[in-house]
Order: sequence, then structure tokens, then C-alpha cells
Amino acid sequence: MAELYLALIHHPVVNKKGDTVGSAVTNMDLHDIARAARTFGVKGYYVVTPYPDQAALCQQIMAHWTQGAGATANPARKSALERIRISDCFESMCKEIQAQESQGLVKVATSARPYENTVSCKHLKRNLNEHMPHVIVFGTAWGLADEIIEQCDYILEPISGAGSYNHLSVRSAASIYLDRLING
Amino acid sequence: MAELYLALIHHPVVNKKGDTVGSAVTNMDLHDIARAARTFGVKGYYVVTPYPDQAALCQQIMAHWTQGAGATANPARKSALERIRISDCFESMCKEIQAQESQGLVKVATSARPYENTVSCKHLKRNLNEHMPHVIVFGTAWGLADEIIEQCDYILEPISGAGSYNHLSVRSAASIYLDRLING
Repeated sequence: MAELYLALIHHPVVNKKGDTVGSAVTNMDLHDIARAARTFGVKGYYVVTPYPDQAALCQQIMAHWTQGAGATANPARKSALERIRISDCFESMCKEIQAQESQGLVKVATSARPYENTVSCKHLKRNLNEHMPHVIVFGTAWGLADEIIEQCDYILEPISGAGSYNHLSVRSAASIYLDRLING
Repeated sequence: MAELYLALIHHPVVNKKGDTVGSAVTNMDLHDIARAARTFGVKGYYVVTPYPDQAALCQQIMAHWTQGAGATANPARKSALERIRISDCFESMCKEIQAQESQGLVKVATSARPYENTVSCKHLKRNLNEHMPHVIVFGTAWGLADEIIEQCDYILEPISGAGSYNHLSVRSAASIYLDRLING
């Protein structure tokens, strides 16, 4: 199976009005998504932020759980947070993964909004058997800005439930997509 | 389809050593699980705590998002948090649901640990078509105490991924189980 990466974008994302903004790092996004990534065999989980203070906050949280008191108290959490990488922008992150993998990279956007050219999780799961590394890209705030979506090769279908409500947390969405891609 | 309820137990649960303890309410558990519950058509999401200060904290968070400034700023969040109910113990919660539904209640425990008599999500999904209300029960801390599991009719299979790592957050686990039960 292809190597799988996750990316959580803090800029550029959109706010409620559709303006392009940057968002703050949320501690629980680091923990929950790293734990899901570790569960489902994701090779690297990139937290993407251009803001040095936010990158420093991430480093501090990671250091506590991977080298500090948290690492001793909770080795399972250590082995999850060890998969986090920090990058200052989407383009640098893609270059870094491509350099590691020495081959192309398939970029997959996610959105709660419907797009014409979405693909299903089943479709993407078949592609994952073709051995090209994939990165699944998530937006914070009200979702990825179009300039990120336009750089991606695919857009995953939105997660729908019992109706039209489409306000899952990014932590829930990442967990469900990973389960569908690995176990679906 | 049967009515579906969720319960998040804060006592009795176990700690890392296996001792029975009570845990504090986590703000993100209210939000993320309520949003997933709303997405997947869950009728009620019970936060179960015997501690009056923790119940008061829940009430305060709910009031902000369902009646206060949060309700105006974010109506989607309002419609999720409106599904939260607070109960002081598992037994009272079960009675309350049974009184509402005027029929029996199937209680389904969840655990990251394997048990001999677990059922698959596919199995439970078939049962959900039989119109008896179901409550899916989640533990905080290191999981449900045996006295809760023993009162349940079923135990759902643990969520496994690419290996033996079984440390998903309860927010991720609840989201994945709901997706499997509704869409799986």
C-alpha cells in the first residue's frame, strides 16, 4: 500500500464569510489527529502554519509529549505525537514529502462543501494500492481556501450522515476518512 | 430505523492502573461528539456525571451555545449542542430514555480492549433496523468500568487500524462508530 500523509492547514483557509484567513493551532487537533494517524498507519502528519509563534507552540506541545514528562507518563501518546511535522506552507510540505519519498505525490483535498469533481473514499482506496504516496489535506476554520483545493489532484466526497448537516469537527472528519480509507 | 442515543460516562470509568475513578468533563467532548451526533441523526447525547460542579459546567457551556452569544454567532453549533442531555448516572439515563421511548432499550458498550463477546458494527447495524431504541455507551479516561459493561447487552468490536495501537480519542472513536453504523 502507498504511504499516506495527512496535512492540517492553518493558512490559507476561509472564515465564515469566505474571506481567506489564518487560524490558530488547536491543541486537541494535534492530539486527536496524531492518535488517529498512528492508529491507521499514517507515515507523517503535517501541521502547516506560516506563523512562527504558532509553530513554536506546536513544538512546545510536541516536546512535552515526545521528550518531556508526558513521554514517560503516556508512551502511547508519545508514539502518536512523534508523527507530527511542522511546515510553514503547503508547497514546502509537498516538496519535503516528495524529497523523502523520491517520487510523485498525490494531493487530496477534503471539504464539507460539495464540488463537481469529488471522488469517493472507495475510489481513493483503490488508488492507494498503486504505491504513489498520498497526502490528505484538511482545513481548519471554515475549510481550505480555493488556492489549496486547486493545487490538489482530487477532492474527497464530503462526509454525509442522516441529513444535510455538514459541521463535523476536523478531528471527527479526519478520523472517519482514515477509517474509510483503511477499513472501508 | 431505530432511535439512536449516545452516552459519555464520566463515572464509573477506569484510570491507567485499572482503578475505578471519575473524570472531569472535557469541553471538546461536548462539541465534537454533539456535532457527530447531529450529523448522523442521533436523537440524544447524554453526558453522564455524578458531580454537581461538572454538571453545572456542562450547563454553562450548553447555555452559551444554545441560548447565549454562541447561538447567534453559530447556529450550526446550536443545533448540535441542543441534543446534549445531562444525567447523574447510567441507570437514571437508561430510565429516562425508556420513559421517552415507551419501550425497551438496547445498551451497547464500547471498548478499545478486546472482549470475547463483541459484536461487529455490521451486526449492530442490522439490529438497528429492528426499531428498538439503542444507546451506544462511551467511557472517558481509560474506558468504561466493568460494572457498566456488564449492564450492557452488547460490546462493540474495538476499532483497529493498521496495527495493534488502540489509543484513539473518544471523540474519534464516537465519530468512526457512528459513520460505520449509519453509512457502513
